[in-house]
Amino acid sequence: MGKVSDIRHTTYRFRLKSNLKYDARGVSASKDEVHAAIKHLDKGLYPNAFCKILPDLAAGSARHCNLLHADTAGTKTSLAYLYWRETGDLSVWPGVAQDAIVMNLDDMACVGCTDNILLSSTIGRNKTLIPGEVIAAVIRGTTDFVEKMREHGVNIHLAGGETADVGDIVRTIDVGFTAFARMKRSDVLVNNIRPGDVIVGLASFGQATYEDAYNGGMGSNGLTAARHDVLSKIYAERYPESFDPRLPDEVVYTGNKKLTESIEIRDPQSSIPNQITVGKLILSPTRTYLPVLQEILNQYRKKIHGLIHVTGGGQTKVLKFVKDVHIVKDNLFELPPLFRLIRESSGTDWREMYQVFNMGHRMEIYLPARYAENAIAIAEKYGIEARIIGKVKRAQGEKVTVKSAFGKFEFIGGGSSV
Amino acid sequence: MGKVSDIRHTTYRFRLKSNLKYDARGVSASKDEVHAAIKHLDKGLYPNAFCKILPDLAAGSARHCNLLHADTAGTKTSLAYLYWRETGDLSVWPGVAQDAIVMNLDDMACVGCTDNILLSSTIGRNKTLIPGEVIAAVIRGTTDFVEKMREHGVNIHLAGGETADVGDIVRTIDVGFTAFARMKRSDVLVNNIRPGDVIVGLASFGQATYEDAYNGGMGSNGLTAARHDVLSKIYAERYPESFDPRLPDEVVYTGNKKLTESIEIRDPQSSIPNQITVGKLILSPTRTYLPVLQEILNQYRKKIHGLIHVTGGGQTKVLKFVKDVHIVKDNLFELPPLFRLIRESSGTDWREMYQVFNMGHRMEIYLPARYAENAIAIAEKYGIEARIIGKVKRAQGEKVTVKSAFGKFEFIGGGSSV
Repeated sequence: MGKVSDIRHTTYRFRLKSNLKYDARGVSASKDEVHAAIKHLDKGLYPNAFCKILPDLAAGSARHCNLLHADTAGTKTSLAYLYWRETGDLSVWPGVAQDAIVMNLDDMACVGCTDNILLSSTIGRNKTLIPGEVIAAVIRGTTDFVEKMREHGVNIHLAGGETADVGDIVRTIDVGFTAFARMKRSDVLVNNIRPGDVIVGLASFGQATYEDAYNGGMGSNGLTAARHDVLSKIYAERYPESFDPRLPDEVVYTGNKKLTESIEIRDPQSSIPNQITVGKLILSPTRTYLPVLQEILNQYRKKIHGLIHVTGGGQTKVLKFVKDVHIVKDNLFELPPLFRLIRESSGTDWREMYQVFNMGHRMEIYLPARYAENAIAIAEKYGIEARIIGKVKRAQGEKVTVKSAFGKFEFIGGGSSV
Repeated sequence: MGKVSDIRHTTYRFRLKSNLKYDARGVSASKDEVHAAIKHLDKGLYPNAFCKILPDLAAGSARHCNLLHADTAGTKTSLAYLYWRETGDLSVWPGVAQDAIVMNLDDMACVGCTDNILLSSTIGRNKTLIPGEVIAAVIRGTTDFVEKMREHGVNIHLAGGETADVGDIVRTIDVGFTAFARMKRSDVLVNNIRPGDVIVGLASFGQATYEDAYNGGMGSNGLTAARHDVLSKIYAERYPESFDPRLPDEVVYTGNKKLTESIEIRDPQSSIPNQITVGKLILSPTRTYLPVLQEILNQYRKKIHGLIHVTGGGQTKVLKFVKDVHIVKDNLFELPPLFRLIRESSGTDWREMYQVFNMGHRMEIYLPARYAENAIAIAEKYGIEARIIGKVKRAQGEKVTVKSAFGKFEFIGGGSSV
């Protein structure tokens, strides 16, 4: 085990919650300084896999491997806090548990892991602001999500967790999860995206058969930006505990919306207009694609050349996992109302919108064209709109082109703009 | 796997960072509200084990089991922040990684798990205050600790982790770890503390052969209390980001010490007086007992009736794991300088001191008297003072009696005072 337990068998992920425009909000646009600290740490068994894959340290089988993955709900908890304080509505808290869990699970699904996952939580709270009923709601969200996934053949086991009263560290509440899984190496999906592949995008918005309400499409990235850009300054005065007091006033709650303001959602999937509050729209719990991906993987595991969870980096995320290809995204979903709202409130330029937000699909399946139709049919069985959103072409170097109703944008290596 | 994956197979631990006196500091004295939320969640395979033990969800062996354990450095990071800001000394940050890791590992050692552990970190930082060099120091502390443990036959594997810029959530920096281990059920140590057992205490202070400097004996509990009670009000003005601004002024940095003030340590183990700053004394990285416990377990695993990691609840911690016994602690270590300092600065009554802090030993081994001498010899081989600190008597109900130089204190069931 000497080799496999080598401490250099380690990578650290640094989530980019936003980008350059928001550096003033204390969110790294570039983490070069930090990356320098960890550049000696390697990427595990399969460097091009979406998640770090460890040897089977748990049981020592050469045919198996392990994943140990950590992520949090990020600053989405601050938005849940605002909404709960304004309305007394505890129902936003279970969604925060789902946010933190799905940020782990859907990353792990991208290496082909969609079952038998162990989960542990770490919750830090400011007890003077967060009572037990909120913790109870977060825990209920955890158990409810696990139960719902089990109904769809996705088995998740709750190991428990730690909840600490750390008001000197945490302003309101921080919610994180760590997930462990052991799987067969032969089931591992390592990204091998090739010229000729088509890209099936799975909608981030709408209502899946396993969701209780319309989902605006928000994940757990870009929340610092979305929260401050959309919401009115009144929240800065009412809830100074919801943001870093060192932030310059000009970047704090600079929008014009109230959390409880209703806006009309004309879901592209249906013609029925719908009303939803701004708060609940942005707080839409991060959708999991596990039930869909599990069924697709069961049928096409060996045919799939790549799965990309569109998180930090938005539509440019794939650039970290490809070589010498030009990825053309020319058939994206009609922009969901959530992202239109963020764009209109922030005035963020469109190029940046595509780098920060998923803009309509949070999962990409790269595969040969002949399997696309069946993959799309499986997604639609679960009420999730899916379509071929683009294709992969041979090229020198790596490039993503987004051809949208709002213009054509090009991004090269690592998600930096051309 | 239906049964073993039952979601009710879950417990949540709630760490008590301090006690009643400090409720005003937003640290739960009683988490009844929260416990009510989770009372339906059970305690795993062995309810009386020190940590939750899960079936072997990873590999499905009936002869094995799994642990997935989470903990953080708590508010010790806030003290490290103060010291680093005052002195520019980055060397306090690696110790914070050790704090968070050891709070996991030494809990797990209490069920007999001392090897082949996977670790993942979750770090949340306020980027406007915590630069990359601090993250680098925390990561270095992680890799250095793992390397040092490997030299002592304790194999820990780093899976990586998540570092998020969440200044709207975290005031300065939060450092947590989650650990996974798979072990043989036949190796699991379940507390079965019996009348007639003696208690071998392992010193929390001094310098172990695998430590680089004198260790004051602090773990990662009671830091909110220690920090505010010992340190001078000047830090409230200089570093308002180091505590919850909602705390009443009368509980914020109410001591008279400066971080860089030197105090004399006359280590009971040696006669050589020693100088150490107040900051570094309280920041002493949480000592791990793994090398010692591994050797003791290798020789006496089946003879040991209980291992208690003296964390939240201090000297009353054992009460959670016993039935109908009176635990008499009448031969404690001479009070280490650290706890004398905290007592003198805070004026906390002695009874409370024994409930919040370890007061000299952070690990208790319950075993028949005839094995005590050898266990003590093994600990001393590693430079860790050990002694029989008390014994277990038959009784009705559960009681701990502390007979100290400062008085006799009795505690009944669950750590509440008589």
